Amino acid sequence: MVMGSHIDTVRDAGIFDGALGVLGALEVLRTLDDADVETVKPVAVAAFTNEEGARFQPDMMGSMVFTGKLGVEEAYASRDDDGVTVGQELSRIGYKGEDSLTPSCYLELHVEQGPLLHSRGLQIGVVEGVQGIAWWHGGYVGEANHAGTTPLDHRKDALLGAADLCVSLRALAEELGRGSVATMGRLRPVPDVINVVPGGAEFTVDFRQYDRELFIEGKRRVESLVREAADRHGLSWSLRQSADAQPVRFDDAMVDLVESKARELGLSYRRMPSGAGHDAQFMSYVCPTAMVFVPSVGGRSHCRDERTDPRDCENGARVLLECVLDLSA
Amino acid sequence: MVMGSHIDTVRDAGIFDGALGVLGALEVLRTLDDADVETVKPVAVAAFTNEEGARFQPDMMGSMVFTGKLGVEEAYASRDDDGVTVGQELSRIGYKGEDSLTPSCYLELHVEQGPLLHSRGLQIGVVEGVQGIAWWHGGYVGEANHAGTTPLDHRKDALLGAADLCVSLRALAEELGRGSVATMGRLRPVPDVINVVPGGAEFTVDFRQYDRELFIEGKRRVESLVREAADRHGLSWSLRQSADAQPVRFDDAMVDLVESKARELGLSYRRMPSGAGHDAQFMSYVCPTAMVFVPSVGGRSHCRDERTDPRDCENGARVLLECVLDLSA
Repeated sequence: MVMGSHIDTVRDAGIFDGALGVLGALEVLRTLDDADVETVKPVAVAAFTNEEGARFQPDMMGSMVFTGKLGVEEAYASRDDDGVTVGQELSRIGYKGEDSLTPSCYLELHVEQGPLLHSRGLQIGVVEGVQGIAWWHGGYVGEANHAGTTPLDHRKDALLGAADLCVSLRALAEELGRGSVATMGRLRPVPDVINVVPGGAEFTVDFRQYDRELFIEGKRRVESLVREAADRHGLSWSLRQSADAQPVRFDDAMVDLVESKARELGLSYRRMPSGAGHDAQFMSYVCPTAMVFVPSVGGRSHCRDERTDPRDCENGARVLLECVLDLSA
Repeated sequence: MVMGSHIDTVRDAGIFDGALGVLGALEVLRTLDDADVETVKPVAVAAFTNEEGARFQPDMMGSMVFTGKLGVEEAYASRDDDGVTVGQELSRIGYKGEDSLTPSCYLELHVEQGPLLHSRGLQIGVVEGVQGIAWWHGGYVGEANHAGTTPLDHRKDALLGAADLCVSLRALAEELGRGSVATMGRLRPVPDVINVVPGGAEFTVDFRQYDRELFIEGKRRVESLVREAADRHGLSWSLRQSADAQPVRFDDAMVDLVESKARELGLSYRRMPSGAGHDAQFMSYVCPTAMVFVPSVGGRSHCRDERTDPRDCENGARVLLECVLDLSA
């Protein structure tokens, strides 16, 4: 079996949200060694490349390639904002390897990155699946013009179009409901001058939903909103989808195993979907998979204030250990 | 008398919208010399420092200092985005001088930078005054968080707040009417990552109106909107006004002179306010002042497509020459 995670940094934030998975998996191996436990099946630790996707898109790139959802050459060709490719960077740091393995099952320990466990005082999240995640990179082109002399009805303000879209995306997520979230994380006006009506705007959209039908409906609506805001403000538009990970349901037996181990250890828990994307969602296409969550203090994540209590980290590793003992016996 | 203008570049756009004023004024001097005309009063050409204000705020800095509306030390202390001051840059390029003069009157030739003359096929704008211009630099601070795991009702999305403000500013300008314009020219989310709810946003606002009462009302409403959008999205806010130029009415006799010269030359014209700020609006506080406009093709300005027909430039210079002959006699 394989215990996995990733160690990535979110650019400018300096966080390591996947570190617990690797550290927990290494701790399980050390514990097995310390106790002279010899497993029947081999146990491995995986750390996937580029799970966050902040610099190179799509995110979860390593597990997508590993599970055949993305061609390795396509992954190598992905470029960052400076035009550098994944392939160039993997060669540079000496991580462009050829080895592989065929896992019989996969488990991933992770911090929740959301407020549900912490706000309810629960110790373990038994993760049943992962939300679908769609990303787009979009652009509006209008007409840069003088902010003082251009009457309102002569304007083609690309930033106003993107702002209108940003507000509309929030309204869409509220209307769709059932945990839908939509986020404009990046936005850049051009030329970005105080007294010039912006003639261009570049933006990103992140949309997530756990239900398969509603995910498809939501993606369709997001793309309509991009066109509608362009029409309202006399803009031309472009839109490129850079990620499209379907909602995933984990293996029933694996999820039941995590739940039973949490219960046997006397830990409080709830079954829940994951709001964030994880390598586990792609691993679930090739072998039975589940995840173990521990609380994030205040639900804070992808920011400098991200924190998890060491006792909760230990609880997560204990559930992981018990599952591994069972699965590798 | 003094004929004035400025030569500035708008950052990233490479335009020189004030060049006509200086070139026209120099052409008037050359024509007087070529014709051996000796004026009774001295005639000077002025080129003011930092009229655009794209790099250093406030705009119209040179004429504000010249007319006592801004202290010279305060102007020297203004910093660009990299922390460099106006004083340092003036020393570096050798333009930090001490000379002055006391003008008896001031005339400025400029392209309209708006669509009114060109769209109506008119040759000359007889400028009666200048809109009031207010600028602000604002910031919102919310909470950076994970775009997938943070439920909508837990979010403090600073970019959403700024987008909401941008849309509200447009609605305000439409509601106030009478030529009101409001523009968000700059906007920057922090941390600017595709899968992070932005915890910060920095923005600028430009508001203009010709009527003195409505200008005051509009400024009050802009500042209210900044607070209201912060309240709606659970954000803290900051706001610093970086320019506040009152609406200006030019000297009646000077405006009448420009109109009579345009009429005598057989040129079509209209009396009109200026939508853009000009050094003339500050010069009007210290001496009788007026301006001459010529058409901007398609009303385009502060962009690479800005253009004025050479025949229109010549018409403007002819009106300027006739006024100068009259005023310096």
